[in-house]
Amino acid sequence: MKILLLGSTGSIGTSACNCVRRHPDRFQLVGLAANKNVDVLCAQIEEFHPSWVYAASHDAAERLRHAMASSIRLSTGAQGLEQMVNEADYDVLLNALVGAVGFRPTVAALRRNKRVALANKESLVIGGEIITALLAQGHGQIVPVDSEHSAILQCLQGEQHHAVESIILTASGGPFRELAAEKFGDITPQQALDHPTWQMGRKITVDAGTLMNKGFELIEAHHLFHLPYERLRVVIHPQSIVHSMVVFHDGAVVAQCGIPNMELPIQYALSYPERLPLGGRRLDLAAVGALTFFEPDFERFECLKLCIDAGAKGGTLPTVLNAANEIAVEFFLDAKIGFSQIARTVKRALESHVPKVADSVETIEEVDRSTRQEVLNALAAKDESWS
Amino acid sequence: MKILLLGSTGSIGTSACNCVRRHPDRFQLVGLAANKNVDVLCAQIEEFHPSWVYAASHDAAERLRHAMASSIRLSTGAQGLEQMVNEADYDVLLNALVGAVGFRPTVAALRRNKRVALANKESLVIGGEIITALLAQGHGQIVPVDSEHSAILQCLQGEQHHAVESIILTASGGPFRELAAEKFGDITPQQALDHPTWQMGRKITVDAGTLMNKGFELIEAHHLFHLPYERLRVVIHPQSIVHSMVVFHDGAVVAQCGIPNMELPIQYALSYPERLPLGGRRLDLAAVGALTFFEPDFERFECLKLCIDAGAKGGTLPTVLNAANEIAVEFFLDAKIGFSQIARTVKRALESHVPKVADSVETIEEVDRSTRQEVLNALAAKDESWS
Repeated sequence: MKILLLGSTGSIGTSACNCVRRHPDRFQLVGLAANKNVDVLCAQIEEFHPSWVYAASHDAAERLRHAMASSIRLSTGAQGLEQMVNEADYDVLLNALVGAVGFRPTVAALRRNKRVALANKESLVIGGEIITALLAQGHGQIVPVDSEHSAILQCLQGEQHHAVESIILTASGGPFRELAAEKFGDITPQQALDHPTWQMGRKITVDAGTLMNKGFELIEAHHLFHLPYERLRVVIHPQSIVHSMVVFHDGAVVAQCGIPNMELPIQYALSYPERLPLGGRRLDLAAVGALTFFEPDFERFECLKLCIDAGAKGGTLPTVLNAANEIAVEFFLDAKIGFSQIARTVKRALESHVPKVADSVETIEEVDRSTRQEVLNALAAKDESWS
Repeated sequence: MKILLLGSTGSIGTSACNCVRRHPDRFQLVGLAANKNVDVLCAQIEEFHPSWVYAASHDAAERLRHAMASSIRLSTGAQGLEQMVNEADYDVLLNALVGAVGFRPTVAALRRNKRVALANKESLVIGGEIITALLAQGHGQIVPVDSEHSAILQCLQGEQHHAVESIILTASGGPFRELAAEKFGDITPQQALDHPTWQMGRKITVDAGTLMNKGFELIEAHHLFHLPYERLRVVIHPQSIVHSMVVFHDGAVVAQCGIPNMELPIQYALSYPERLPLGGRRLDLAAVGALTFFEPDFERFECLKLCIDAGAKGGTLPTVLNAANEIAVEFFLDAKIGFSQIARTVKRALESHVPKVADSVETIEEVDRSTRQEVLNALAAKDESWS
């Protein structure tokens, strides 16, 4: 299986490389795309011999041009990424880009009827309606890479859709699960980056702290599994052993569990519906001792509610939700706004937006762009109505 | 679907009647077999209009003959049960008999290429090798009714057998999970009948206390799912929410969970692989709060080890294991031997048996009969080498 890997130097990307190393008879990396981490990208090119490489940064592309064989195609910039997705020869696009930038490649690959192993959650959050329409027209296939959605997909194997009563997404609850509401204003970027169970990128780790990430996952689940929001639930499960669950109409609850390890859902998305061996430590429930579960607190974690509302109303609202969040998280990580202001910023952006029908990639991108600009201006100007 | 229900007045049988009431468009009871509970049986005949009725007791059969329509066929005695299984018109045999008496009907139904919804665990414990051979020759189908094996079957849907690494059976641990070893001798029948999570018949409830029941389930799982004993594990899980789990070769653990309710596995065995609706309360993990897991204690619960050893050695040893246990449990329930003596009796019977190849129903039945006689004699005579 020929894999085009977008985001090859990140957390998901390097885990995906381990899957390829483990099953070289099954997987081949034919293209690699990264932002600007030239050192890691060079090592990957040397090891995997892709036929196409992309670097978002022109400087990085320039350095690569001198470092690698001239037989490898090289592209850069916004058009370069889409060109690679549209022209390269691959079976599956593993989209591990972070942010709205991942949406267009997902659409491009689906239009070519490719499988998309989707780690870029923004594709479905901001463009879920467009992607659902493409899939309904028979274009391509999406196999989720998120541990939660992969768990749900695994629980659904051999089952009928009409027998699904509800889906329960588990959430670790993040580092601030037990923190009192009045202390949320004091949370530092350093504290927000210290996630108790999962090692992930910086932006998604902050989203895990606000539970925005879990809200995004509800929107993804809505689009992937065709259930209304009232049949999608979240339960807090600090150990992150149960990755998610499906409740069937006979009351049976099927859960997928395991030691947190992103290589499993990545490999499953590549080999789906087959399971390939993956060694290493196994879950030992007697050693874990206890699995605990709590209701989520929608008061302290307002982002969760913002996601459900924006998702249920649909149209361009989830695009606004995501764009405002990306800018707010950037400002928080630069210590320019407080942790609580992330939710307030997103809420303000949603309120000020006049929703449109999400009828094209261009509409989504225009709303994404204008929301970013608006939020950027408001936060940079320290506009009091936004804080 | 036409159902022949053996053991209609017991715990599984009356739950099965609820499944038929719930889905009268799908299920029809065409035959009922019970031991001697004429009152309940009469009410079932009036409600479900079976075309064949069996009562083990001749007295009960005589009373039924006068109470029910003459158009209903009636049989009694040992031959009468097999005649019903061999001659009645049905699609699925729901075998909810208790004890070795259930083995012959299972074999008879399989020989007629019927589906057997199997709650009678002794069928597989004492005759697993014969049943496996029948199934391998293409005769019939077994769908388990035990909550544990039903859970495993549900977890295996859509999966490939070669991807199964191990199976983990959960056990509530029974009422004596935390009791010190030196107090096992003082356990009364009343205490043994007070199971913390499942409402079941008397004999199986005692087996749940010794963990003999869990050992039987390991032998059943071995035959149902074609795994060696070293890939079958038991974990103690007092809440009985996780009904069992499958570990796949990529480290994924798929678990089936729910509020303990035998109607679910009964209905699933009847409608398999489809799931039919079943209303009622749903699992609320946040309300449960914590699921706990412990390693089983093979020292205090010696029966578990006796089962694994007898199962692994195979042949007629599991037949001896079961027969000795049935007699010992009877003696315990009659307060004639202590709780600890159940395991000792079974161990002694296994040690004194010269194993044979389990090559026919007759061999199994002969070993079953002779073991019962030997154990009965020894316990009745209070033979000191057996206590």
